[in-house]
Amino acid sequence: MTEKKKLALIVHSGTIDKLYCAFILGSTATSMGWEAHLYFTFWGLQALVKGAMEKAGLPSDYKQMEKPMAERLKQMKYPTPYELLKRMKTSGLLTIYACTPTMEMFGIKREQLIPEVDQMAGATTFLDVAANADVTLLV
Amino acid sequence: MTEKKKLALIVHSGTIDKLYCAFILGSTATSMGWEAHLYFTFWGLQALVKGAMEKAGLPSDYKQMEKPMAERLKQMKYPTPYELLKRMKTSGLLTIYACTPTMEMFGIKREQLIPEVDQMAGATTFLDVAANADVTLLV
Amino acid sequence: MTEKKKLALIVHSGTIDKLYCAFILGSTATSMGWEAHLYFTFWGLQALVKGAMEKAGLPSDYKQMEKPMAERLKQMKYPTPYELLKRMKTSGLLTIYACTPTMEMFGIKREQLIPEVDQMAGATTFLDVAANADVTLLV
Repeated sequence: MTEKKKLALIVHSGTIDKLYCAFILGSTATSMGWEAHLYFTFWGLQALVKGAMEKAGLPSDYKQMEKPMAERLKQMKYPTPYELLKRMKTSGLLTIYACTPTMEMFGIKREQLIPEVDQMAGATTFLDVAANADVTLLV
Repeated sequence: MTEKKKLALIVHSGTIDKLYCAFILGSTATSMGWEAHLYFTFWGLQALVKGAMEKAGLPSDYKQMEKPMAERLKQMKYPTPYELLKRMKTSGLLTIYACTPTMEMFGIKREQLIPEVDQMAGATTFLDVAANADVTLLV
Repeated sequence: MTEKKKLALIVHSGTIDKLYCAFILGSTATSMGWEAHLYFTFWGLQALVKGAMEKAGLPSDYKQMEKPMAERLKQMKYPTPYELLKRMKTSGLLTIYACTPTMEMFGIKREQLIPEVDQMAGATTFLDVAANADVTLLV
C-alpha cells in the first residue's frame, strides 16, 4: 500500500479569486486521490463564517470585473466556492483547519463556522502536515 | 545522469511586483540549470495576453511608487518582465502553462496569448509537475 | 544526528496581516526546533527598514479593520511583528535574507535595515536553501 500524495495549502485570502484558486487546487487534488489539507487563516478564516463565502467578491483593484465574472460563471454553470468545498468534502480526502489564533483575534466562535470545518488548530498542526506534503502553497 | 531540480510556480497575480517576483525566481532557477514550470491563472493568465504584460502596473496600494520604480529600473537597465520571460525561454528549461478554466471564464483564446506559452492545461497537470518539484510557490 | 526540518519562506508583502502570517509560521517553526529561512523581497524588504515594521497597516481593502484589530491584539497582549521576529532570532534557528536586487531598486542601504538581518542575498541563495527545505511558501 503506497501512501497518498498530499497537498498542504494555507488559505490566507478571502476574495473570490483566491478562494476559487484554493478550491480548484483542492478539488483537483482530491479528484486525483490526493489528501488535501486546507488551513484557513486571517481573511480566509473569515470566509469560513456561515454565509460569508457567498458574499466574497473581488479585490477593489479588480472590482469592475466582479459582475461580468459572476455572470460568466453562472452561464458556465460553474460551481460556487462553497459548492466546490462541499464536493471536495464528499471525497473523504479533505481536512479543513480553522486557525485558532485568528479566531481569538477576530472573536469568532466555532459555532459561527460552516459545519465542514474539521479542526481548530494552530500553526504547529499545519507545519506537521506540510512537512509530509508533496506540494505546499499559500494563497 | 541526475535529474534536474524543479521549480513549480503558480502565477495568480498580474501586477508588476508579482510578475517580477515570479520571473526573477524563474530566471534564477533556469540559470542554475533547474527546470522552471510556471502555471498562469487568473490575473497572471491575463498578463499572458499579447501586449498586456507591458501595461502591468503596481497594485493601487502602492500606486505612488509606480513611476519612481519604472524610472529606477530603466536607469538600472533592468529587463522588463517580458524580456525576463523571453530570456528564460531561451534556456530551454522553462515551461509555461496557461490555465484552461481561466481562459474559458475570461473568454480568452489561444491566439490572443504570447507565443511563448507551451501548453494550455488544467490544475491536474500542475499538481503532477509540482509533486515532483523541489520548490513549490504561489505568487 | 538527524538534520533539522526547514521552512523556506519568501516574504513579498509588507502589510501587517502578511507579516503576522510569516512570523507566526516562522516562530512556530523555530519553537518546533526547525530552521526558518525568511527571504524578504519587495514590500517585505521595505518592512525591514528600521522603524517601518511598526508602521505596517492593513491593505486598503481591509482598512476599516485596522483599528479594531490593533486594539484586540493589545488586549490579548499579543507580540508585535517585530517582537515576534526578535523572539525567533533568540532561538538561533532563524536566518533573515534581504533581497539584494530589491535593495538596489529601492535605493536601500544595509545600514538602514534592522540589525537582525543576517545576509544580503539574491534569489540563487534562496533557491539553494528552499531545495532542501521541507516546506516552501510565499507570503
